[in-house]
Amino acid sequence: MAKRLPLIGVDLMGGDSSPLEFIKPLLELAEKNLSRFNLCILATSHFLKKFNALEKDFPKVYQNIVLEEISDVVTMDDHPLTAARHKKNSSMSIGMKKLKAKKLDAFISMGNTGALVANATLYLSPLQQDAKPCLMATLPTKLKSMVVLDVGANINCKTTHLIQYAKLGATFQKMQGIENPKVALLNIGEEKGKGRVEFQETYLELQKYAKSTGSDITFLGNIEGTQAFDGEIDVLVTDGFSGNIFLKTAEGIASLILDSLKNLDNEESASIKKKFQDDTYPGALLLGSNSIVIKCHGGSSAKNLLNAVLESCYLVEKEFITALQKELISLP
Amino acid sequence: MAKRLPLIGVDLMGGDSSPLEFIKPLLELAEKNLSRFNLCILATSHFLKKFNALEKDFPKVYQNIVLEEISDVVTMDDHPLTAARHKKNSSMSIGMKKLKAKKLDAFISMGNTGALVANATLYLSPLQQDAKPCLMATLPTKLKSMVVLDVGANINCKTTHLIQYAKLGATFQKMQGIENPKVALLNIGEEKGKGRVEFQETYLELQKYAKSTGSDITFLGNIEGTQAFDGEIDVLVTDGFSGNIFLKTAEGIASLILDSLKNLDNEESASIKKKFQDDTYPGALLLGSNSIVIKCHGGSSAKNLLNAVLESCYLVEKEFITALQKELISLP
Repeated sequence: MAKRLPLIGVDLMGGDSSPLEFIKPLLELAEKNLSRFNLCILATSHFLKKFNALEKDFPKVYQNIVLEEISDVVTMDDHPLTAARHKKNSSMSIGMKKLKAKKLDAFISMGNTGALVANATLYLSPLQQDAKPCLMATLPTKLKSMVVLDVGANINCKTTHLIQYAKLGATFQKMQGIENPKVALLNIGEEKGKGRVEFQETYLELQKYAKSTGSDITFLGNIEGTQAFDGEIDVLVTDGFSGNIFLKTAEGIASLILDSLKNLDNEESASIKKKFQDDTYPGALLLGSNSIVIKCHGGSSAKNLLNAVLESCYLVEKEFITALQKELISLP
Repeated sequence: MAKRLPLIGVDLMGGDSSPLEFIKPLLELAEKNLSRFNLCILATSHFLKKFNALEKDFPKVYQNIVLEEISDVVTMDDHPLTAARHKKNSSMSIGMKKLKAKKLDAFISMGNTGALVANATLYLSPLQQDAKPCLMATLPTKLKSMVVLDVGANINCKTTHLIQYAKLGATFQKMQGIENPKVALLNIGEEKGKGRVEFQETYLELQKYAKSTGSDITFLGNIEGTQAFDGEIDVLVTDGFSGNIFLKTAEGIASLILDSLKNLDNEESASIKKKFQDDTYPGALLLGSNSIVIKCHGGSSAKNLLNAVLESCYLVEKEFITALQKELISLP
């Protein structure tokens, strides 16, 4: 019997744009990938009814699509824990329950980040006993892409969490073909005594780990925001508060400069804009559970969402979760 | 009797460039401002001897210049507290002692930030009983300049410190002619419950303070890095760890983009580069003591340093410290 195709859950509620903007591009992507994955679309009945009109245009996709009706909507203003505990029929809660029951292979949401993290914590099994959720984003640098984690799931990181994040990020980069991922700690100075105490401890632990038998990471030590985009790093480790500020400041200043460039309309400025506008970057991966969850930006375009679907499908195919478990278990 | 001119102390040791690169531009600036300020240059005897050759070119400046020989040099690798405690004849320690004794009116250094903060804490009187040192930087935005504090002096900020920073920044902006400075808290979401507990508390306290009688600040609430450069804010408040990451990430991504622009050589890209290259911005102000101290970047150009001299002179003339004390004392 043929292996079941990955079923990718897409939560169309809770983003800044209407679910109607995403459905057609999603169905087109699914039609191009009929032998690769199936879609599970989570939305309110109001939207699901509107989607029915599309069935005649995508008959093959509709043979295997799962349309999941949800009744609670999590908004950007909802308190994360309250949303997770009380909106049990939200797309997020239902998505997590389906992941847990292996009825979904991956889940993608553009909604309230805190509520997504809270739902994941509530419903999903942790990757290992003391695993803490974290969000991993991919950012451009002068040379290549780097992953940054945590960018906002856990604002009170302990040393053990920061070390976990280093290992999770390194495993991801190894799957991208980087044999000895270069890991650095985002800090406020390069010397090893810099930063808050959990950063000082993490520095020493990662230094020890990188040198231990069986480890294939290279630890570059502390790095400052000024050097972070030079292209040397594969994995940038930080706590959820600093990481979120890092990510959003990078977005803010990039937009400030690109805005100043808007009257420049030649080939080069176009290529710069393309590099820094995040259309091509899928959302952040929510790590720390034994399921694949991607958080897309609330203001995601259809292209962002499609990239996230393809990324999640790739991670299912590559058995990313098994790879993460192996890496974490094999630690000294 | 005429009032004594401000005496501005300039520490030429400990930056990335040789003291020889700065001395002539400094003397030229002093010559243009003979009736405005006098210079006190702090350097080792090795450099002071070399400076002697310049006396014949700047006879008027040399009538009032103070050349202060120092024997200990603080390097970028020195541990801050150790440097402050044991290198008692460093330019930083001597500068601070002279400030304390009112023999200097302002002090400027390009050296080790941590050591400068430690020396200030050791030698200077705090602005008020529980004042904590903080570094305030000026950054460009889409519309105007904003000040950001703390950008790296105090990495374990409490609520009371964050509130102090708001008031210090607002007082500075009022001196720049902004009647009702708009203050925001750098956070990882806009809603009031966001961020670590000290940020949640500061939000509530600043909201209360902004509404109280006599207060002339407007509190805009939390702001994320994505919006921080839109130009609405006058004072951006944050802890020293996040603020340092904010500042350096902004520098890093600006350099990444400006680097991509290097082949663009038209008028517009030149004006963009000018806006974001920090030549025109003086260093960060070290606040929290009752003296004027400016920390310039280790890699400062002569132009940076001259701007810092003029800025410190302006602050002396405007009696900045008295204004700060009044603002802090008048608090509810």
